[in-house]
Amino acid sequence: MFKIITKSSRSKARAGKLKTSHGTIDTPAFMPVGTQGTVKAATWQQVKDIGAQIILSNTYHLYLRPGIKVIKLAGGLHKFIGWDGPILTDSGGYQVFSLAKLRKITDEGVTFSSHIDGSSHLLTPEKVVEIQSIFGSDIMMPLDECVAYPSTRAEAEKAVIRTTKWAGRSIEIKNMKYKSKGELFGIVQGGMYKDLRKRSAEEIKALDFPGYGIGGLSVGEPKEMMLKMLEVSTDNLEYEKPKHLMGVGFPEDIKEAVKYGIDLFDCVIPTRLARHGAFLTEKGKEIIRNAKFEFDFTPLDKDCDCYACKNFTKAYIRHLFVAKEILPLTLMTIHNLRVMTGLMEEIREKIKNGLI
Amino acid sequence: MFKIITKSSRSKARAGKLKTSHGTIDTPAFMPVGTQGTVKAATWQQVKDIGAQIILSNTYHLYLRPGIKVIKLAGGLHKFIGWDGPILTDSGGYQVFSLAKLRKITDEGVTFSSHIDGSSHLLTPEKVVEIQSIFGSDIMMPLDECVAYPSTRAEAEKAVIRTTKWAGRSIEIKNMKYKSKGELFGIVQGGMYKDLRKRSAEEIKALDFPGYGIGGLSVGEPKEMMLKMLEVSTDNLEYEKPKHLMGVGFPEDIKEAVKYGIDLFDCVIPTRLARHGAFLTEKGKEIIRNAKFEFDFTPLDKDCDCYACKNFTKAYIRHLFVAKEILPLTLMTIHNLRVMTGLMEEIREKIKNGLI
Repeated sequence: MFKIITKSSRSKARAGKLKTSHGTIDTPAFMPVGTQGTVKAATWQQVKDIGAQIILSNTYHLYLRPGIKVIKLAGGLHKFIGWDGPILTDSGGYQVFSLAKLRKITDEGVTFSSHIDGSSHLLTPEKVVEIQSIFGSDIMMPLDECVAYPSTRAEAEKAVIRTTKWAGRSIEIKNMKYKSKGELFGIVQGGMYKDLRKRSAEEIKALDFPGYGIGGLSVGEPKEMMLKMLEVSTDNLEYEKPKHLMGVGFPEDIKEAVKYGIDLFDCVIPTRLARHGAFLTEKGKEIIRNAKFEFDFTPLDKDCDCYACKNFTKAYIRHLFVAKEILPLTLMTIHNLRVMTGLMEEIREKIKNGLI
Repeated sequence: MFKIITKSSRSKARAGKLKTSHGTIDTPAFMPVGTQGTVKAATWQQVKDIGAQIILSNTYHLYLRPGIKVIKLAGGLHKFIGWDGPILTDSGGYQVFSLAKLRKITDEGVTFSSHIDGSSHLLTPEKVVEIQSIFGSDIMMPLDECVAYPSTRAEAEKAVIRTTKWAGRSIEIKNMKYKSKGELFGIVQGGMYKDLRKRSAEEIKALDFPGYGIGGLSVGEPKEMMLKMLEVSTDNLEYEKPKHLMGVGFPEDIKEAVKYGIDLFDCVIPTRLARHGAFLTEKGKEIIRNAKFEFDFTPLDKDCDCYACKNFTKAYIRHLFVAKEILPLTLMTIHNLRVMTGLMEEIREKIKNGLI
């Protein structure tokens, strides 16, 4: 399923190919986020055109709305949303902890109230695997417990213990009932405690997942701390297996994280920034509404090959934003995603050329 | 510039070709409306893909925002907005009367306050031609006075007199200063008074415009009255010249209006309905949020060849609408515009086959 093509001699970085039944992904890869079954403001055609080979979607959101029944009757998530490429779905755990209300965590699972209509739900490790099997996700994630930052050692340890227990139940039901479905990755937690990261990695590794998600990072901690935790996590997992650094997607973080052998990234920030009028450039982000762009008849980025940059100027996109139009959300989304996929192409090239 | 290809033997209907310096339009044609320099929620690529050959944009809106200076420095409207096909711009008159505040109409022109920032502006017939010349519009419209419905005979007559006067000044400055620019059409008014319609048509005809806009219809009057006024207007204009029924675009109205020799239509309704969740079908409009579509895994219209219908189901688009996503606005806009361009293709075909 995962084949490493080039190994860096400088770091744990590698360029590879991750094969799924819906297509092969060149790694390291950035996965645009389609929370509710759509990459906000973009068509799948546009997502494909910028070179994205896999998308990430959210189990929590899709489970609540439109609900499992619709997706099942549609013939799975790919058919429902009309995207025929690979899909990774998260476990919903993170959203339960960040969006839902009145949650109660027991060893059985998580009880929470929907952020949409207040209805009560119980997600268990078994149910989360079942849901993603119904989706037909190419890569599934097991229910895990993610702690806030900062957290006490005791909180972080408790979450590690539970995450391992749940991981065991997840892989068990996966192997028993959903063998032929997509791959289930294991998730490493451990907060900002080196020994807990190590312990979590070792415990998850012992369960023999085909790949891993590194969770609970980039939640507000200093960058150095994140990289330290990432290092401990990946040092204690098999080099050969694919790894997803969940929710991390700032270009500067990605550039560092690939050196620890991370293959998959996802982040809502590039698309969210786009909708809020910020476009990514080599030098960081710029605000399109800025008055300095009123008469700027150059593209967002003169070297970018995306539809927005090939066809439109900053002055026009600025006008559309000021006029509260819908099109600039699409144009900026396309551009920011292209910056991300372009960055990944560059990283893969550098790895192949021994530069990372 | 305008060539009639097929004349109906049953009515004044005709199929033709309207040539502009940015391309040729098969008529009768529907023009998607790009009020602020964008067809809301759609890219130009999508607008082209559904077969639109010309768009309409609004002088009033573009004059206020982004303003003439930006468009001039961009090298004209086509370059500014990135649409390389033909553009018809209206005069802004209708918007001054419907959107702006504190307007004062004198023979000189219209003084009004911007609906955006309250700033005061004077539009004169000369200025309106100048603005559209700076735009580089392929078809321009002169400043006219449109009366509300219902209006008294005195009001309607006063508007006819002023519209003719302004038309004279418009064609004069066009011929004097902007000869090489796009074509300036004349506008027929006259409210719901047959004799005033006739008088307006005759007076505008005498000014020798290369084409006409029929204004002030579909403003709330009964359909029969509209068709009567349309008949009187077109009966008193040269059959050979192209005619635009301004702001009219309901399929049922279009089907009737082509029989009076109308060649161009525009209307914001198809795109506005789309953004409000209504999609057009053969039988009228349907509301996508309707619960009956929750498990409907068929396209909006099974016979439609648009991107939305070829790739997505009602259940999915409904989900996206319920989840307040941006993509369904785009998908529904594409579909509704395709219904309109498809209707026009059908009408042209019927005219060629002697069925209209």
